[in-house]
Amino acid sequence: MTAQRRERSFDPPAELDFDVPAAADLLQDFLRRETRKAGYARAVLGLSGGVDSSAAAALACRALGPRNVLCALLPHRMSSPESLRDARRVSRRLGARSVLIEITPMIDAYFARHRRVSRLRRGNKMARERMAVLYDLSARDGALVVGTSNKTELLLGYGTIFGDMASGLNPLGDLYKTQIRMLALHLGVPEDIVWKTPTADLWAGQTDEKEIGYRYTDIDRLLVLLVDRRVDHREAIAAGFPRRMLARITRLIASSQFKRRLPLIAKISPRTVGIDFRYPRDWGR
Amino acid sequence: MTAQRRERSFDPPAELDFDVPAAADLLQDFLRRETRKAGYARAVLGLSGGVDSSAAAALACRALGPRNVLCALLPHRMSSPESLRDARRVSRRLGARSVLIEITPMIDAYFARHRRVSRLRRGNKMARERMAVLYDLSARDGALVVGTSNKTELLLGYGTIFGDMASGLNPLGDLYKTQIRMLALHLGVPEDIVWKTPTADLWAGQTDEKEIGYRYTDIDRLLVLLVDRRVDHREAIAAGFPRRMLARITRLIASSQFKRRLPLIAKISPRTVGIDFRYPRDWGR
Repeated sequence: MTAQRRERSFDPPAELDFDVPAAADLLQDFLRRETRKAGYARAVLGLSGGVDSSAAAALACRALGPRNVLCALLPHRMSSPESLRDARRVSRRLGARSVLIEITPMIDAYFARHRRVSRLRRGNKMARERMAVLYDLSARDGALVVGTSNKTELLLGYGTIFGDMASGLNPLGDLYKTQIRMLALHLGVPEDIVWKTPTADLWAGQTDEKEIGYRYTDIDRLLVLLVDRRVDHREAIAAGFPRRMLARITRLIASSQFKRRLPLIAKISPRTVGIDFRYPRDWGR
Repeated sequence: MTAQRRERSFDPPAELDFDVPAAADLLQDFLRRETRKAGYARAVLGLSGGVDSSAAAALACRALGPRNVLCALLPHRMSSPESLRDARRVSRRLGARSVLIEITPMIDAYFARHRRVSRLRRGNKMARERMAVLYDLSARDGALVVGTSNKTELLLGYGTIFGDMASGLNPLGDLYKTQIRMLALHLGVPEDIVWKTPTADLWAGQTDEKEIGYRYTDIDRLLVLLVDRRVDHREAIAAGFPRRMLARITRLIASSQFKRRLPLIAKISPRTVGIDFRYPRDWGR
């Protein structure tokens, strides 16, 4: 049995099982309600051709109607042509609007002055360029930026702060990668996209699981225990997770905490932004 | 008496008075402690030549030593040459390191494909480009990005989300613009920089106060009442603030709330990033 076949017959681990149709409805309502509340009728999102952004695009189309959703295809010269082809296919199937903007000229203009730049720096610059383009399209079209980061990535810090982690609304942020796949199947995202090897597509041959060192289903099962059920390390080890994996995953969560919070402000006054300022509701409108 | 002279003999309104030397010490300690806690010994910040970034640079130099502070001068073709000259002067006086990176090529590469782009869109793209450059320098040098947004800007939303509002640490975010001037004088920032007309320098002739419609000292006095003392509108009017100003300032605060919070995530699971997830301290290190 090949790895691919094993994945296709994927039966979610019990910890990760959830009511997929109910969640899809909830997320669709969330997108519709929060978009309107923010004063928008349209959404824009970066569509990479992966399962996360495809699921987010499908949800946005359900929530707002496909003609109110702009899928931005933002490839770089080094992105895989398959990703772009998949993104086009998804946006066409959804009947959404789409725009293609190559980020190569902006990225190359910046790195022209640098020698020996690591892949990580290049990747982060690309993620932030995409964010800036999405926000510019947002301003141009009056469309809210919909985020596509899932809970696994957010917890592990496997994303770029102020890059792909930045958005106005994120319908996927409370679902693990494994759960996004279940959601995507329910939403009609093509199976080959649901099951293709996850990659940030920042360089050729990059895959998430190779970089993180574990399979998403295993990571997600551990995260449910640690984060949602709040078991301690002893219990996680008793549940069969190797000590080394536990150490690596908890280290990733702890060291990426800064990506999940607002910029730290030194508190001096009675009410501080990001700490204890809330604008009083009785100010009215 | 000219407006400039009146400003020079500036006596802070009682509401905005604070213990400047104590605050400077507190902010210096904050920067040193939090930078180390994050695993860094160095800082990088965008130095525009205005009073805020000059004060932040001075604090960072006190906290970490000037050789551990990189001042990034990030002008665009449309930025004022005086701003760049002032930034150079400040960084030289502090003895900090500095780097000049023109953002014109990246910005022009993007807008080459767009016609009729508003100044606002152009300005926001520039702010996000500067953020991306600062984070790239952060990765290159192992330096934490120090923010320079003040409390007035944060409350009014007078800044670019995921642009100049993005940082790792922000020493200025709990001080109003008027208070930053007092702090800057204490820190030895040149008087002409402290008192020059505040501008985001996104286009020629732009000034903050013209755009917002009120003088900073008046805005700040009102914000202290509304935000820190939490008085209601009736009391603010009794204190002499015009109804129209009150309406405009509270509208700005309310409509920019999204810039002061994390991307909204739809809650589905027991522990959601940005809502109720905190990593347990007993996970240890």
